[in-house]
Amino acid sequence: MNMVDTICSIATPPGRGALAVIRVSGSKAFEITGKLLKDPQKMLSQDPNQAKLYELYDTERLIDQAVLIKYVAPKSFSGEDMVEIICHGSTYIQEQILQLLLQAGARMAQPGEFSMRAFLNGKMDLPQAEAVSDLINSQSEASHRLAINQLKGNFTNRIKELRAQFVQLAALMELELDFSEEDVEFADRKQFNQLLDELQTDVTALIQSFKVGNVIKHGIPVAIIGKPNVGKSTLLNVLLDEDRAIVSHIPGTTRDTIEDNFTIDGINFRFIDTAGIRITKDEVESFGIERTFKAIDRAEVILYLVDITDTTIEEVEQELLFLENEIDFINKVFIIVANKIDKLEDFPSRFSTWNEYEIVYISARKNVNIDLLKEVLASQINKYAITDNTLLTNVRHYDLFLKIESSIKQIKEGLAEGLPTDIITIDLNHILHYLGEITGEITTDEILNTIFGHFCIGK
Amino acid sequence: MNMVDTICSIATPPGRGALAVIRVSGSKAFEITGKLLKDPQKMLSQDPNQAKLYELYDTERLIDQAVLIKYVAPKSFSGEDMVEIICHGSTYIQEQILQLLLQAGARMAQPGEFSMRAFLNGKMDLPQAEAVSDLINSQSEASHRLAINQLKGNFTNRIKELRAQFVQLAALMELELDFSEEDVEFADRKQFNQLLDELQTDVTALIQSFKVGNVIKHGIPVAIIGKPNVGKSTLLNVLLDEDRAIVSHIPGTTRDTIEDNFTIDGINFRFIDTAGIRITKDEVESFGIERTFKAIDRAEVILYLVDITDTTIEEVEQELLFLENEIDFINKVFIIVANKIDKLEDFPSRFSTWNEYEIVYISARKNVNIDLLKEVLASQINKYAITDNTLLTNVRHYDLFLKIESSIKQIKEGLAEGLPTDIITIDLNHILHYLGEITGEITTDEILNTIFGHFCIGK
Repeated sequence: MNMVDTICSIATPPGRGALAVIRVSGSKAFEITGKLLKDPQKMLSQDPNQAKLYELYDTERLIDQAVLIKYVAPKSFSGEDMVEIICHGSTYIQEQILQLLLQAGARMAQPGEFSMRAFLNGKMDLPQAEAVSDLINSQSEASHRLAINQLKGNFTNRIKELRAQFVQLAALMELELDFSEEDVEFADRKQFNQLLDELQTDVTALIQSFKVGNVIKHGIPVAIIGKPNVGKSTLLNVLLDEDRAIVSHIPGTTRDTIEDNFTIDGINFRFIDTAGIRITKDEVESFGIERTFKAIDRAEVILYLVDITDTTIEEVEQELLFLENEIDFINKVFIIVANKIDKLEDFPSRFSTWNEYEIVYISARKNVNIDLLKEVLASQINKYAITDNTLLTNVRHYDLFLKIESSIKQIKEGLAEGLPTDIITIDLNHILHYLGEITGEITTDEILNTIFGHFCIGK
Repeated sequence: MNMVDTICSIATPPGRGALAVIRVSGSKAFEITGKLLKDPQKMLSQDPNQAKLYELYDTERLIDQAVLIKYVAPKSFSGEDMVEIICHGSTYIQEQILQLLLQAGARMAQPGEFSMRAFLNGKMDLPQAEAVSDLINSQSEASHRLAINQLKGNFTNRIKELRAQFVQLAALMELELDFSEEDVEFADRKQFNQLLDELQTDVTALIQSFKVGNVIKHGIPVAIIGKPNVGKSTLLNVLLDEDRAIVSHIPGTTRDTIEDNFTIDGINFRFIDTAGIRITKDEVESFGIERTFKAIDRAEVILYLVDITDTTIEEVEQELLFLENEIDFINKVFIIVANKIDKLEDFPSRFSTWNEYEIVYISARKNVNIDLLKEVLASQINKYAITDNTLLTNVRHYDLFLKIESSIKQIKEGLAEGLPTDIITIDLNHILHYLGEITGEITTDEILNTIFGHFCIGK
């Protein structure tokens, strides 16, 4: 990407609305936008951060009346001169204004290019820029909170703390190098090892937090399994419909049409399609055990649905036994849900023998006890509960932390093997490098293009 | 609608983007928005029309960093105190901010309510408010230009001219009433009749312009007719695909997914589905002549497609004869299109006998001469060409002009029958009333609710 160009892009969601916002950023932002005005001087002499109404022209032809906000570098989102054009939200007008800006010398912004310029101009560090992208993609309270914390700089501060401690380690190393002739090794080594152990614990904890952080960001995968006709799709639809109903009570708002998502207590659940999965032993085999169980294995939560009108506790026990052989339930939430209670007149007396299992009794069709099921779900996913703790949510950060963990191990091995101090120092410098890559103090064009290429356009 | 409430709404297109804009309007706009800020005083003391970055909170929980623009009444779109919140375009954040505004005492705006308030506060007249809605819906250069002209007040000025002339008529009437004892009738009557004739001509011209104006606004209806397998859907797809390709060359822009629309020379064409229409006499009868021809009759442009590999000029002549009996071609553009020229090696020599007809030879499948077909189409729709003339585009205006025309006729009849001057004056007052309804000087809640209820939300 050429960072000298002046770039432009629609920043609001695609389509028609009352208003749309078009962003222009770069050293020629005012000059280029001025070419759409009868009196460019008026905008040039306009105070920064003022919103003013202008007429936008294609030569003599009036295209729109629009509000222009002028941001003067470095006091703008990108840190460059910027204009935000708030125009009428006709798709035709949005296109026309973009065309005019392109003709006047701007070029279309690449995805994430405004944010990349903001980063390069020191307006935000890399985790903050990444948080802006996460924020735009956030769909639940939990994922929103993670992104906001990162945007506020909490994550960067945690990295800086770690960095300071590794710098302290390096200083202890230096001390040993300086006094290598003398006999100072022992005392400092003890302090060094203690600090290294503490850091290893912290790094491992962060790495372990990634699973939770990543699941919160993308939604907890849920599988509904059970025999044919136990009501799997009815239950799914009840869960999804209730969620859609909650969302759609504000007219004019629409969730992204990510199908098969629902939210409980601010946590997003993502339904995994296990279509065709049947649980009786013979049938699973006929569908291919591996494919089937791989799908189930991606789930964090398994709702095991049985038709209470059509099964005995002995059959359920048999199926559970079979499932336990095939699926690794460790770290998974497994809930037995008995469906179709509306069809039984002698419910619940008949099911006294079921009492040794914790079973949620529902009717998906009649919407009975669905709230109870949600409560049970919510109570069992405590580890995903909304938190202000620092969690790893980003694969890039996760990968770098894995490298840091591996360098720590190498340092420990080196110490055990009595390797010379200057060899150990190399590994320490690697760690400081990885931490710098996370915050963006150390970076390359390639890394930046990869990171910002995943952003949405206009950001 | 209660105009005392403070209202809020998302103004940008629904869905996720880099940014979204939420509008708040009403006497409590600053107070209500202030409840989302840690330091409301900072916003209250902010200069009008300033864009400033704030943190928006749900009590202690940070929801977003957003730019707030404060507009102080009457210098705002609605003429009331207004805040525009430019927030991150996550659907979750948009929802959260709206929820907070509702909790703080705002209510959701009805469709068009910001514009209605703008009208009621004298920020724009009724045709201008209607033009804003047309502008947002405009999809082509021609419809955009009509809306822009109306927004600039050209339409209202034309109505005001007419009104001034009718007032002059009324004055002549008054004169006659004042001097009714004396013998002034004759001289003024001549002038009166002359002015009335001129006005009738103007009014009729405006009424006639509605057909063109309405078609430009909604797109020219086109029917592609022909026997089965002549390539109707292939031709349609070529026309649509080329248009989509033009639109999609700017990344991030998307036309509204109004299927079956394409644009030539800034004019929008709207394809009429005539599926099942077959032109040979027997087959048309079997599908029900009336329904079939009613669909064709709605078309302004008919592309009559023949398969050149499978038909003779005699057959075409026979079909044309048949069509002429069934369809009223007056005022319609009728173009004969011969398809599949790619399949003939002896083209065009074999078709010398076809020369007495103006035929466009194409291959839809190989995209041959499609541009030529477009040129022919463009050249034949001159009456829909892009114009700055005042055209009626709005059904409401059209209906009122029909009433005006009818009142003029009644005045003329009254004069011919020698009705007393004060009876004639009643009809004249009706006309002034209708003109006042068009500009909005005379209106009722019911009329306003009907007009603004068709606007999109957030406008």
